[in-house]
Amino acid sequence: MSNSTGTIFTLTTFGESHGAAIGGIVDGMPAGIEIDERFVQQELNRRRPGQSAITTSRNEPDKVEFLSGIFEGKSTGCPIGFVVYNQNQHSQDYENMRCLFRPSHADFTYHEKYGIRDHRGGGRTSARITISRCVAGALAKLVLRQIGVEIHAYTMQVGNVGIGKDYQKYDLSLSETNAVRCPDLQKAAEMEQLIKEVKSEGDTIGGIIQCVVKGCPVGLGSPEFDKLHAVLGKAMLSINAVKGFEYGDGFDCICARGSEQNDVFYKDADGSVRTRTNHSGGIQGGLSNGQDIVFRVAFKPVATLLREQDTIDMEGNPTVLKAKGRHDPCVLPRAVPIVEAMAAMVILDEYLKNRSVR
Amino acid sequence: MSNSTGTIFTLTTFGESHGAAIGGIVDGMPAGIEIDERFVQQELNRRRPGQSAITTSRNEPDKVEFLSGIFEGKSTGCPIGFVVYNQNQHSQDYENMRCLFRPSHADFTYHEKYGIRDHRGGGRTSARITISRCVAGALAKLVLRQIGVEIHAYTMQVGNVGIGKDYQKYDLSLSETNAVRCPDLQKAAEMEQLIKEVKSEGDTIGGIIQCVVKGCPVGLGSPEFDKLHAVLGKAMLSINAVKGFEYGDGFDCICARGSEQNDVFYKDADGSVRTRTNHSGGIQGGLSNGQDIVFRVAFKPVATLLREQDTIDMEGNPTVLKAKGRHDPCVLPRAVPIVEAMAAMVILDEYLKNRSVR
Amino acid sequence: MSNSTGTIFTLTTFGESHGAAIGGIVDGMPAGIEIDERFVQQELNRRRPGQSAITTSRNEPDKVEFLSGIFEGKSTGCPIGFVVYNQNQHSQDYENMRCLFRPSHADFTYHEKYGIRDHRGGGRTSARITISRCVAGALAKLVLRQIGVEIHAYTMQVGNVGIGKDYQKYDLSLSETNAVRCPDLQKAAEMEQLIKEVKSEGDTIGGIIQCVVKGCPVGLGSPEFDKLHAVLGKAMLSINAVKGFEYGDGFDCICARGSEQNDVFYKDADGSVRTRTNHSGGIQGGLSNGQDIVFRVAFKPVATLLREQDTIDMEGNPTVLKAKGRHDPCVLPRAVPIVEAMAAMVILDEYLKNRSVR
Amino acid sequence: MSNSTGTIFTLTTFGESHGAAIGGIVDGMPAGIEIDERFVQQELNRRRPGQSAITTSRNEPDKVEFLSGIFEGKSTGCPIGFVVYNQNQHSQDYENMRCLFRPSHADFTYHEKYGIRDHRGGGRTSARITISRCVAGALAKLVLRQIGVEIHAYTMQVGNVGIGKDYQKYDLSLSETNAVRCPDLQKAAEMEQLIKEVKSEGDTIGGIIQCVVKGCPVGLGSPEFDKLHAVLGKAMLSINAVKGFEYGDGFDCICARGSEQNDVFYKDADGSVRTRTNHSGGIQGGLSNGQDIVFRVAFKPVATLLREQDTIDMEGNPTVLKAKGRHDPCVLPRAVPIVEAMAAMVILDEYLKNRSVR
Repeated sequence: MSNSTGTIFTLTTFGESHGAAIGGIVDGMPAGIEIDERFVQQELNRRRPGQSAITTSRNEPDKVEFLSGIFEGKSTGCPIGFVVYNQNQHSQDYENMRCLFRPSHADFTYHEKYGIRDHRGGGRTSARITISRCVAGALAKLVLRQIGVEIHAYTMQVGNVGIGKDYQKYDLSLSETNAVRCPDLQKAAEMEQLIKEVKSEGDTIGGIIQCVVKGCPVGLGSPEFDKLHAVLGKAMLSINAVKGFEYGDGFDCICARGSEQNDVFYKDADGSVRTRTNHSGGIQGGLSNGQDIVFRVAFKPVATLLREQDTIDMEGNPTVLKAKGRHDPCVLPRAVPIVEAMAAMVILDEYLKNRSVR
Repeated sequence: MSNSTGTIFTLTTFGESHGAAIGGIVDGMPAGIEIDERFVQQELNRRRPGQSAITTSRNEPDKVEFLSGIFEGKSTGCPIGFVVYNQNQHSQDYENMRCLFRPSHADFTYHEKYGIRDHRGGGRTSARITISRCVAGALAKLVLRQIGVEIHAYTMQVGNVGIGKDYQKYDLSLSETNAVRCPDLQKAAEMEQLIKEVKSEGDTIGGIIQCVVKGCPVGLGSPEFDKLHAVLGKAMLSINAVKGFEYGDGFDCICARGSEQNDVFYKDADGSVRTRTNHSGGIQGGLSNGQDIVFRVAFKPVATLLREQDTIDMEGNPTVLKAKGRHDPCVLPRAVPIVEAMAAMVILDEYLKNRSVR
Repeated sequence: MSNSTGTIFTLTTFGESHGAAIGGIVDGMPAGIEIDERFVQQELNRRRPGQSAITTSRNEPDKVEFLSGIFEGKSTGCPIGFVVYNQNQHSQDYENMRCLFRPSHADFTYHEKYGIRDHRGGGRTSARITISRCVAGALAKLVLRQIGVEIHAYTMQVGNVGIGKDYQKYDLSLSETNAVRCPDLQKAAEMEQLIKEVKSEGDTIGGIIQCVVKGCPVGLGSPEFDKLHAVLGKAMLSINAVKGFEYGDGFDCICARGSEQNDVFYKDADGSVRTRTNHSGGIQGGLSNGQDIVFRVAFKPVATLLREQDTIDMEGNPTVLKAKGRHDPCVLPRAVPIVEAMAAMVILDEYLKNRSVR
Repeated sequence: MSNSTGTIFTLTTFGESHGAAIGGIVDGMPAGIEIDERFVQQELNRRRPGQSAITTSRNEPDKVEFLSGIFEGKSTGCPIGFVVYNQNQHSQDYENMRCLFRPSHADFTYHEKYGIRDHRGGGRTSARITISRCVAGALAKLVLRQIGVEIHAYTMQVGNVGIGKDYQKYDLSLSETNAVRCPDLQKAAEMEQLIKEVKSEGDTIGGIIQCVVKGCPVGLGSPEFDKLHAVLGKAMLSINAVKGFEYGDGFDCICARGSEQNDVFYKDADGSVRTRTNHSGGIQGGLSNGQDIVFRVAFKPVATLLREQDTIDMEGNPTVLKAKGRHDPCVLPRAVPIVEAMAAMVILDEYLKNRSVR
């Protein structure tokens, strides 16, 4: 069931870019939660194409319809089926891709694995299928709200333009006020400029999204193979175009000594145990420790270029690929809500699992 | 079942550092495989403490005993139970830790989650429990050998001493000839020197392990949530002290344009499809593409220092921790076989899963 | 994920009787299978209400729409999403049930578990949700056909009218020629007469469905907890109104000695190993042995009666229930295709799992 | 992972009849439970051979050793590994079975599935491997005690000697006072006599075990595929020699009308909702309804006879089997604790799962 994720709060998805619909089933939604469908749609809108000059010009309404599991506005504990019908597809834009393998896409590997593939718009491997994740993530957020957990993801770096890891100096809500979703408005403008330049060259660019989870209870996560950061890492690495994941000090931890890295405990005035620093990124021994959970996700430049590229066809003959269609020059602005959605699902799932440990 | 990993080839583990034994059950081992117990023990020996001046001086024999699933030297397809009895434990070294929370360890989080913990040697959160992973990984390697898959992990960087990502210029087998497990003998000596210095200061240091998987068939991995790199990433992030995972160009991908990152396909003389570069790290669309799979794992400095540290006890009173016991100043040399073991388990599991897709 | 079933070939379902739609996701369908949508719809039609005088008079078209996983008529290996929109609902028929607990229905238990329930037509607990099973079962049958596995279920007994366990004397295809789905036409008429009588009294009646699987390869099923008959049993017991499951000689085995029950092996002229009798019902040690797999499923009388019944409301006050709506007096005729569907899913799943054992 | 069972409270097992040891891992044991090891050993003793004249004369001490997950007498929430070393094996008794297929055993099917098998004492398919179930079941009982759940299984019928389904007229604790484990002492003596007769003829006999679960909270179980009776049914069907499962009125429900079968609700003096009858067997809509859970399990006569039987060898040549070894003429007395153990595991698992539904 590789198209399912989660243990208690679970999502199973279906759909291709140019098929009839994208959708999924959320199983394990706690009962009695008010389902604010407007909020869910808003969350989904955050990943919608056509939002600005730096995202694809496709204009997909992407309206979610709930088919089950909700009765008189509340979750019933039964599975929530939902569907987003595809529209505004230009399948003919992809006819030339039926018989060739696009570089650094999944065409070749899917062809080898399955012997058949839907070549239109990347089929099942299109980032469009993250629609289902946004819907499920929004449902998870509705529950997390009730226990005081907040999740903020934002664009921390695009190419060589970045704002560093220190999020404390920013009002993170500002990230939703600009097209790149960066809380530093000055840097956001620079990032936007960079993306426009890259786009004008028919090229693409990558970057880093940082995510901060506030208010997470102590003790979420599970020992051994399902450590909280391992499950978060898998969730993030499953997002299209992701190449790396780190939490806390991440790869930079190798530059410091243990004596510099260790987070010293103290008892707060309110009686709770805290750490003076947060090199651990809110996770120790695979369990949340009550500090902010902080992690970063690296996205590669989009593989689809609006310029010619050498490649081969299915017989192995050299050919030249000229992408048509409407594509993002940089995936990050639209990936921010997806990072949040995956984080929300993971945190809720671990929260629900944690109810059974004693 | 957070103490289980895998779908077809699975490992479930048990054991604490100072309990009676460490062990596990491998379920899903293909039948009819010759079980070279000497090889398994050798793999286990690679993580054993007391191997050199830069690892802990504990001397644990760590002899694996197989209890089931093997008949007249061959796997039967039934679960393979195994056990490694603990010996040479100095539990009294940890008596002072019964009531305090060591910084950047799991003492506090486990205490909060379970209300009880085995404080001796870190209990379940000790790196000693990776013994089970080495055993299962060795069994997986026995199967992978038969399909021509080879896995090489090695220490790529310790602190600021590193050899870069390009593994093609090294004879990777050299990594097993020195104490730090680095294939560049000159740099290995520098790393060893650095670790000794850090140790003499009662401090610790981290680094990066790179892993290369050669001969992996095309098409391993699964769509959506179980992409090959997501499953590998989770496996690596579940290893003690890991703070980050990246594959292919990883976090560095943000410095390049899409036109520089894309791997161009060509048909090889032998008729197989290859890529001219391998920025993708052998994985495209979440599936192996037949090139070398390449990934890196960041390890933080060990949290246990042989110097005094401020901390608090379970009541929240400030206190000073002075670790006794025998500890590694750098986890990397002994983590190399664990990275390989986890990679072997993941690749074999995906190989077995792949048999059912068409 | 209690709304999912299977390991490799999996079905996850959603939907309530009076919600927007019933549907599901099949994950793990092998790639490259021709999807005969007409066949799937026919299978679904077999459970449709309104087929005869002895089933409910509801007239639901129940048209399945496939939303993904099929490209140019073939399965792609990606998840197959499907949906059946609800129509012809008379939700007002159930308004009086909002506040009371129907006897031997799930109203009380769901209310206690979830604190909320969709009372209309039984909500999630309606037999209508088996629609998804029929669709997935039909997809499984398309694969099983290619490996020569055939599945025949039929009504063996209604009340005290039965035809015994010996299916060899019948042309099983005759079961589809009459309203009760019994291959003995004489007895079928008697059963039909009995159901009509019971219905005329506003009462209901139960019975036994027998299922025969022919052509199943040797060795399907898994040791210990997932023995083939255990997985089949769970699948059958999960069907609405089922009270018992037995295979081979079943409960009657207690009347015989071991010397009478044992099935003696012999080597057939074609070189295959067979048994002279089949008390084992085609399963030995939890694995298929190549003989016909034979099992029986007991269905209770439908709990909804078209006569007054005493019950209580949600406050515990005594009240009288008078069911409106359109209901089946006997569930068996429409349950036959569901038994087949569940059997098909189980056999296919075990077939796919079996590819990895050596 | 067919050698695992459960979702939150899980058991994974290993071991063969004549291998080094039988054992398992319980993952998901709630933390902080006092582990009464003497009680666990007593439960295990209940299935031990050599208890009376009607069970096998093998004398296996079967002493359980806990290897992890328990600290200072309490569960820690970490996996509990345990092992029972095999002793008193007479492997040479089975040498003649290396090359032939015993009738109605798993020799043939395992040989076909795996291409290799441990022929000694039935290997993995021996009833001896239920040792692990007894240990895990005893641990589950320790938790269930704290929430007031009691489980009583007993022999209800052997051959044609039975005491009927009505358990209310018996003091169920009396079942542990006699060799057959039947609460009716008169009938117990008759059953014992029957078993002795059958044994003296070198033959074997089957029967029915009934199990009653008292004090189960309302709402345990899960919708759709994991209905409580479906999960219980699978657990019971996974026990060696089981041929059928039914709950409540079971197969007898077909003799009654709906109006006779329905259980009428009323509000008890203590304010709780009860049913006047319990045809439902304590489960409605797949969820426990607070009444006693009642189910029955049919066991076939043991396949190993102490008389000659015709069979074939691995080449298909006819041969005669003459079992040596020490065998039970009737499996029921020793299966009673296994039925209880499986029931305990299922109920606890569903109890823990239920904590997450709202």
